Amino acid sequence: MKLVEQIKQPILEEMELFESKFRESMATKVPLLNRITHYIIRRKGKQMRPMFVFLVAKMVSNGKFEERTYRGASIIELIHTATLVHDDVVDDSNRRRGFFSINALWKNKIAVLVGDFLLSKGLLLSIDNNDFDILKLISVAVREMSEGELLQIEKARKLDITEDIYFEIIRQKTATLIAACCGIGAASVGSPVEEVEKMRLFGELIGIAFQIKDDLFDYTDAKIGKPTGIDIKEQKMTLPLIYALNNCSDKDKKWLINSVKNHNKNKQRVKEVIAFVKEKGGIEYTTIRMKEYQSKALEILEIYPSSPYKDSLLNMVNYVIERKI
Amino acid sequence: MKLVEQIKQPILEEMELFESKFRESMATKVPLLNRITHYIIRRKGKQMRPMFVFLVAKMVSNGKFEERTYRGASIIELIHTATLVHDDVVDDSNRRRGFFSINALWKNKIAVLVGDFLLSKGLLLSIDNNDFDILKLISVAVREMSEGELLQIEKARKLDITEDIYFEIIRQKTATLIAACCGIGAASVGSPVEEVEKMRLFGELIGIAFQIKDDLFDYTDAKIGKPTGIDIKEQKMTLPLIYALNNCSDKDKKWLINSVKNHNKNKQRVKEVIAFVKEKGGIEYTTIRMKEYQSKALEILEIYPSSPYKDSLLNMVNYVIERKI
Repeated sequence: MKLVEQIKQPILEEMELFESKFRESMATKVPLLNRITHYIIRRKGKQMRPMFVFLVAKMVSNGKFEERTYRGASIIELIHTATLVHDDVVDDSNRRRGFFSINALWKNKIAVLVGDFLLSKGLLLSIDNNDFDILKLISVAVREMSEGELLQIEKARKLDITEDIYFEIIRQKTATLIAACCGIGAASVGSPVEEVEKMRLFGELIGIAFQIKDDLFDYTDAKIGKPTGIDIKEQKMTLPLIYALNNCSDKDKKWLINSVKNHNKNKQRVKEVIAFVKEKGGIEYTTIRMKEYQSKALEILEIYPSSPYKDSLLNMVNYVIERKI
Repeated sequence: MKLVEQIKQPILEEMELFESKFRESMATKVPLLNRITHYIIRRKGKQMRPMFVFLVAKMVSNGKFEERTYRGASIIELIHTATLVHDDVVDDSNRRRGFFSINALWKNKIAVLVGDFLLSKGLLLSIDNNDFDILKLISVAVREMSEGELLQIEKARKLDITEDIYFEIIRQKTATLIAACCGIGAASVGSPVEEVEKMRLFGELIGIAFQIKDDLFDYTDAKIGKPTGIDIKEQKMTLPLIYALNNCSDKDKKWLINSVKNHNKNKQRVKEVIAFVKEKGGIEYTTIRMKEYQSKALEILEIYPSSPYKDSLLNMVNYVIERKI
């Protein structure tokens, strides 16, 4: 059994019921819109976000489950789907999960409107049920994601980016939505605010570790058999490179900056940059930092008694660090 | 004094204070984002939406005013601005109110992210202050606007569109946001739900009349000295044409459908269609329907005692019908 399937085992029933509830949450009397939402349901992904919501809810409450938990997962998924539909418009992508994108099939105008519709349905689902705590968690995430992306556009190509800014970008851009999932899971079963905050932090730590792992793929050869070097080509400054820059001689620094700035399309030079970052300990340092986040996440789970839900969350944390893709 | 300036007189102070509060509501620590929001503030429009919020709030409460009223106006304006920024991406527009659009200056990706940021700031402004009644009014409007636009894309080019569908489209697409402004104005000063609903309906009636007037410009010569015929060229079925189609002989109907379907780029034929619609009483009928909505809107105001705020709202209703542009 694949690890993702194994993680899903203790919440199989809930995941199945979730699907029909999620479908209901998109209902509309506009026929065109109905055709599009049906298409969206058919191309669903791994559904990591609802899994986080359900596993956290069940772990903190010893298997308790509320209608609110389903709504929390639906809201997250509605807003996440809205974001994906808009992203494909922005990036002019034709494909998503092996299917054509909404903009490829129905054009940009319709895709943007579908995104807005899904977003408003998510908001109304929580407002109509007085789920204001859930709504707040998700709204903070929406704000942080847009801020994080914009901070990245502004800073990540500047060669003097600091570690602090790097961590701020990945916290906002990637970690905040996983944090919201875990916070919403706890809030949905009536956890006190301190526990909701603790679970939010748990999600944030995993999210940061997840993004560091992603950035490491650029310099290591796990993903597609060799280092990709894509970030270097795009002049995106990530932790391995930032570390190397801060820990080499002035002469080497000059060479490194010149390489990324002016020779980032030169395959040979990109290879040399990757080798240099490795030699300076950039991979090692980055891996240590990633594992720090992993440990902190695992620490938060320590106080909970053993349960299938906790086991799945532990597996999830380890999967994030050890995945090959 | 121009009519719009005259309408603004009784709320001049509030409108001024609103501007600084609206500016505050967009605050962020991301420098790029700050530059963009400053640019957005500089190119502000007539601000009809905050005017509706403030005038309704003051009329129903005899001049009372709450901090919540400012927040209501800011939320409406944040979400309306987000929509405009996204619209310009979708329509690939370079201009907005005589300024360059956000996508023209900063590219599509940044424009979509700025829209998402403004939207989340609007949500958080209401959530942080427990303005859940306001949030609900605005979320319903966001859903209806996207549904209305999609319904129009699906139906308005079909030649068998009914009057009912025409009214449903303009109610959702145009009237729902003005309805939300008026409902929020009342809700912000603590009106009972029945009054909030009445003010929402008042805004909806004006909004519908406003859109009918807009559609009339296609067939009358008020706007730019001659009928525009743009809707006919785009095969958009509006009330004057729908009425003519339903009130002519089968032979004429065939000719009309053929003209709109196959000869809509032919200037001479478009002129003939306009003349035919006039002759069949399409303009007259449409004007009558528009005035029905106007009367119903004015009727709602009857129970309120005379006040400068009520006078301004009466002026607003008449401006909608009598405007030349």
